[in-house]
Amino acid sequence: MTYCCAMRLKDGLVFISDTRTNAGVDHISVFRKLYTFAVEGERFITIQTSGNLATTQAVIGHLKNQLDLRQEPNLYSVNNMFELAELVGHTLKRVIADVTADQQEQSNYYCSLLVGGQIRGEEMQLYNIYPQGNFISATDDTPFFQIGESKYGKPILDRALRYDTSLSDALRYGLVSFDSTLRSNVSVGMPLDAIIYKKDSFAFPKGKRIYEQDPYFNHISREWSDILRQGLNTLPDPTEDYWQ
Amino acid sequence: MTYCCAMRLKDGLVFISDTRTNAGVDHISVFRKLYTFAVEGERFITIQTSGNLATTQAVIGHLKNQLDLRQEPNLYSVNNMFELAELVGHTLKRVIADVTADQQEQSNYYCSLLVGGQIRGEEMQLYNIYPQGNFISATDDTPFFQIGESKYGKPILDRALRYDTSLSDALRYGLVSFDSTLRSNVSVGMPLDAIIYKKDSFAFPKGKRIYEQDPYFNHISREWSDILRQGLNTLPDPTEDYWQ
Repeated sequence: MTYCCAMRLKDGLVFISDTRTNAGVDHISVFRKLYTFAVEGERFITIQTSGNLATTQAVIGHLKNQLDLRQEPNLYSVNNMFELAELVGHTLKRVIADVTADQQEQSNYYCSLLVGGQIRGEEMQLYNIYPQGNFISATDDTPFFQIGESKYGKPILDRALRYDTSLSDALRYGLVSFDSTLRSNVSVGMPLDAIIYKKDSFAFPKGKRIYEQDPYFNHISREWSDILRQGLNTLPDPTEDYWQ
Repeated sequence: MTYCCAMRLKDGLVFISDTRTNAGVDHISVFRKLYTFAVEGERFITIQTSGNLATTQAVIGHLKNQLDLRQEPNLYSVNNMFELAELVGHTLKRVIADVTADQQEQSNYYCSLLVGGQIRGEEMQLYNIYPQGNFISATDDTPFFQIGESKYGKPILDRALRYDTSLSDALRYGLVSFDSTLRSNVSVGMPLDAIIYKKDSFAFPKGKRIYEQDPYFNHISREWSDILRQGLNTLPDPTEDYWQ
């Protein structure tokens, strides 16, 4: 499995992905699930992938090939983020259709994608693209999307993350969300990839690969455990009627 | 959906269930999913249910009918908790087989059960019973089971709950786990049912129904939110390399 999270906030975009893939528990590998495409000063695009690895790699492969061969449309030629989401969605739909004869079989090859970024002259956008090729976009009310093993890490984001949360806070909340997921589900694994994009910067952030020994991640992981443990202990004892 | 959690601890057993059932989002109802059976001074048994409501009600119906008609074996005649789990498992398997012609169709009628309790002369036991009628039992290493929408509330239990956790602490951790789930998934809903059984007491706790306005639950829900929010804010800022 996989856990990817993306946030579209007032000040920018935050993307975090794990790197664990498994075909059965005896076949676990590290594969990047966070891809970036950028034209310095003009557009910055990330794609996060969850689901069938052959499908996700084929989608990324086709998108890169379109760029290499200058086929139209491609990620660098589309006019805006909406067209970009459509391009990625169509590519995904075609890849799945290529390997399957009928609709029922398709679900074995499903994958979901988060596509975020900014093209000069436009607002930042974040899309959740479904295996059918259609998509929804993040809004001020719903500033984050998750794909893959999303449930373990959802409560902390539901409670804390708002559209106007700072990028620094959002990254911390995101890492705490990943820490909870990593502890509860062995199919999500280190290292993680994280990228922060500042609104209107049109810069090309390299992002950071967070390994198991990463001092900052370990620090907040330990400290968060302490906060939870101490916090649980400060909650009042159940009232008498709970014991009846 | 449903969320049920059961804990088998050094000092006793703790059971918490929600009561929301839904057949589509436009057909939401309140149904009890935590059933108790007891012979004062001799045996105390709880059954928690998750999955197809007709299946779970049929299972409980058959188990009650066996008692009413004094059919053998029944919940009050089995020699020990292992036989009891087998009885419940067989009943579940038969109920599912009764409404389905082939194996593939069966998954529409699946339900999962948590069965816990104590029979005099024995240790307390807690079983997770699968739709196939087989089951696993909780151990000192793995002192809790969840069924239904279990992922949202699992991280807090993974971090905090141990076999030697006190019953009072375990109940608090459990309620926090439910609070997280209730906030993130609308298919799990109040009121909750909670029962605490003290080891070797062979008493018949009535348990408590926790409504939305329950002062204690609301108090810890609010306080837990504050603890998380304040805790998140005390975590250190991301180091410089996260911004590259």
